[in-house]
Amino acid sequence: MNTTADLIEALRGVLGDPGLITDPGAMAGYVEEQRGLYRGNAPAVARPASTDEVARVVKLCADAGVGIVPLGGNTGLVGGGIADGQVVLSLERMNKILDVDPVNATMTVEAGAILADIQAAADAADAYFPLSLGAEGSCRIGGNLSTNAGGVHVVRYGAARDLVLGLEVVLADGRVWDGLTALRKNNTGYNLKALFLGAEGTLGVITRAVLRLFPKPRAKAVALAGCGSFDDALQLLHAAQRLAGDALMACEAMNGFSVELAEKHVAGAASPLEGRHECYVLLELGAADAKADLGALMEEVLTEAFEATAVEDAVIAQSGPQADGLWRLREAVPEAQKLEGGSIKHDVSVPVSKTPEFIRRASEAVQAMIPGVRVVAFGHLGDGNTHFNLTQPVDMDKQAFLERWHEVNARVHDVAAELGGSFSAEHGIGRLKTGEMARLKSAVELDLMRAVKNALDPLGIFNPGKVLPPRK
Amino acid sequence: MNTTADLIEALRGVLGDPGLITDPGAMAGYVEEQRGLYRGNAPAVARPASTDEVARVVKLCADAGVGIVPLGGNTGLVGGGIADGQVVLSLERMNKILDVDPVNATMTVEAGAILADIQAAADAADAYFPLSLGAEGSCRIGGNLSTNAGGVHVVRYGAARDLVLGLEVVLADGRVWDGLTALRKNNTGYNLKALFLGAEGTLGVITRAVLRLFPKPRAKAVALAGCGSFDDALQLLHAAQRLAGDALMACEAMNGFSVELAEKHVAGAASPLEGRHECYVLLELGAADAKADLGALMEEVLTEAFEATAVEDAVIAQSGPQADGLWRLREAVPEAQKLEGGSIKHDVSVPVSKTPEFIRRASEAVQAMIPGVRVVAFGHLGDGNTHFNLTQPVDMDKQAFLERWHEVNARVHDVAAELGGSFSAEHGIGRLKTGEMARLKSAVELDLMRAVKNALDPLGIFNPGKVLPPRK
Repeated sequence: MNTTADLIEALRGVLGDPGLITDPGAMAGYVEEQRGLYRGNAPAVARPASTDEVARVVKLCADAGVGIVPLGGNTGLVGGGIADGQVVLSLERMNKILDVDPVNATMTVEAGAILADIQAAADAADAYFPLSLGAEGSCRIGGNLSTNAGGVHVVRYGAARDLVLGLEVVLADGRVWDGLTALRKNNTGYNLKALFLGAEGTLGVITRAVLRLFPKPRAKAVALAGCGSFDDALQLLHAAQRLAGDALMACEAMNGFSVELAEKHVAGAASPLEGRHECYVLLELGAADAKADLGALMEEVLTEAFEATAVEDAVIAQSGPQADGLWRLREAVPEAQKLEGGSIKHDVSVPVSKTPEFIRRASEAVQAMIPGVRVVAFGHLGDGNTHFNLTQPVDMDKQAFLERWHEVNARVHDVAAELGGSFSAEHGIGRLKTGEMARLKSAVELDLMRAVKNALDPLGIFNPGKVLPPRK
Repeated sequence: MNTTADLIEALRGVLGDPGLITDPGAMAGYVEEQRGLYRGNAPAVARPASTDEVARVVKLCADAGVGIVPLGGNTGLVGGGIADGQVVLSLERMNKILDVDPVNATMTVEAGAILADIQAAADAADAYFPLSLGAEGSCRIGGNLSTNAGGVHVVRYGAARDLVLGLEVVLADGRVWDGLTALRKNNTGYNLKALFLGAEGTLGVITRAVLRLFPKPRAKAVALAGCGSFDDALQLLHAAQRLAGDALMACEAMNGFSVELAEKHVAGAASPLEGRHECYVLLELGAADAKADLGALMEEVLTEAFEATAVEDAVIAQSGPQADGLWRLREAVPEAQKLEGGSIKHDVSVPVSKTPEFIRRASEAVQAMIPGVRVVAFGHLGDGNTHFNLTQPVDMDKQAFLERWHEVNARVHDVAAELGGSFSAEHGIGRLKTGEMARLKSAVELDLMRAVKNALDPLGIFNPGKVLPPRK
């Protein structure tokens, strides 16, 4: 088989007409990044219906020397699923929930299953799958696992890779690795599963997964606290961990300007606190025991922090709708940014205890670069991940501001690195951050990753150009 | 450098006299497996005092074509740390706890730090490091991480690999990979850390680690329940997970004969229940909130199980010493076996819900092979790991019984495999189970592991003969 046309015919032979898209119009949704950052192209979009079809597609493409870009819900934020000339391999037709085992606390799913459907299936079985992010209505679990998605509950349950017991993966040579175990303990050789989780589709195509289920949190308490600084917010977090560590489900923070923007631009987003604060903290406690008095526990946490002068004011939600209202404020921040002009974004993490220092230093650094820039700092205080985003100065031209994106990114990433932090906490590398990989990762680490890539995908067919920078 | 003598002199140059042992008598403790299963040999035992010394030792050995066996506390149970002609690289002098950060909830340690010391350091900082096993007074954290040690708290906190945020590792070419981050979220490329955790010293030498700390459980409740079967025990576990999931710290089970042996042979081991039961379950709840009424929660769990006729009788410990007494019964079982004759051991795991079926089928299989064999089934019901051990028939010759070891192992491992289980839940492969790797692992999986091994250690200097079976 010598040409792309030959490959496409061979793919059609395996997948049938429903399983293959070649019309450019119909392919648009599969090759365009959701925020317009990348517009890719592909000779075809393959939509296999089974692991066997995935394996055959991989083999055909490998034999033809054509690369493959695995794709879930196309909700990624770093262009990791955008092809430039490779065949797009969409998992969308493999969207079934195969098994729910409440006694073993596991769920077996196909990689194209939508996250919200997985959450619902767990709920219906009186259990809980804790992965929760903004895109959950359309993102697919294969993508979540390949990018090691985070979300709001990492402080309690870990990220996506911590929620998986087993995987089935199609390898670069078209063979299928059946690592689909439901075991909690298995020390028989290397942790191969861990390689594929977070590999962003560059080492293999995840086709199935065994997910962990958790006890459903039947008791909940949500509070919003106003603090005088991020240092104080950290003290509140520490009190929550010490007094209520097992019940802490989320600890989100927002700086004053974030809340201001949210209230300004998003209907229904409002702080119930009377005054303004430097930093707002949303705390959520949850427990399997429906009778757990989490309201009292929350009260205790806030009181201790109040007496240490770490909290200026606070409100504990007294009802479900009130709790929802507090979360709505937090969820409104990303949206509010769009309506306030140009926004330069970061997804950094630092050791939790370094968050205040990071925000301080990074804010100084960007003010020096672009006087009048406005800091929108919000995120997952509980796990050290801050979305340190910058809204343009009021009177600056939006384009001129956005043209500073990479220069500002580099400076902020350097500040994070100085504090032992990461330039990509949860979104991954994709193609957006390969430059930072080359700039900030040690030679030893890049060599190790390339060695692993060469071992598992010697022909480089899986998602070329993603994650690993080209050798210098 | 051409000879072993040359290598030894070069090592002495790097390590100094305190850092090198060559006297066979002095080396004995480093090359003999604790139960007498293996008696190895080595040209020397290197005892480096720093990561730099480790790196230089690795480079010298690699250049000389001499293998290296990394060694912690020599408490392993599969011969993974026993050399046969390689240089033993003991981490014992690198035993410091370098940093404790309660706000970030992390601890940085050298790989030779003793587990009990790590537990104590966490406790002193009002925090908790949950890894807990029988050998904790002498095992070293590097060994625990390299073998992904399990212990009694896996049901709540996971195994060793889930307790680590970062590693420093010396690689096969003598370079040092500094992956020593304290971040909870970091999606910048492949999860290299995960490769070394559980690799049993065959991919690199762990020299430092950043460990996770947890809130100290200030409230605790311990109970012992008598059940009519392992199926009933499973129902009790399920009730505990549903009603008290966040508080469940341990769920251990013992069959009737285990308890009988423990009471017979070990002073101080006694069941507080009046009657005899097919299966005993030890439950432990823990919470960070000192005021949590775990006694009431335990009562609720046991009552629900009682009403479902899953529990025949139960006792909740009313004091610390009573709680210790319940644990002593469980801890007495391994010891009691030694005093009852020959014992053939297994370390299997199955999906939690399959435990009763596994015990049933495996018991039938071994009775057919050796009529009169007595099953001592105990272990971590909460995570699916059963130490399915067999005590010789009363009137059988001990040697004749032990000679059936491998044949019996194979049969029991097959039963576990039929139920989707593993032949090594927590102890690892070492050299004891490489035969089972060859027999039971798929060709695809072995190929993947060999590809990884070849990528990271192409000359095969790290722990040769361990984990991976020789190619057929």
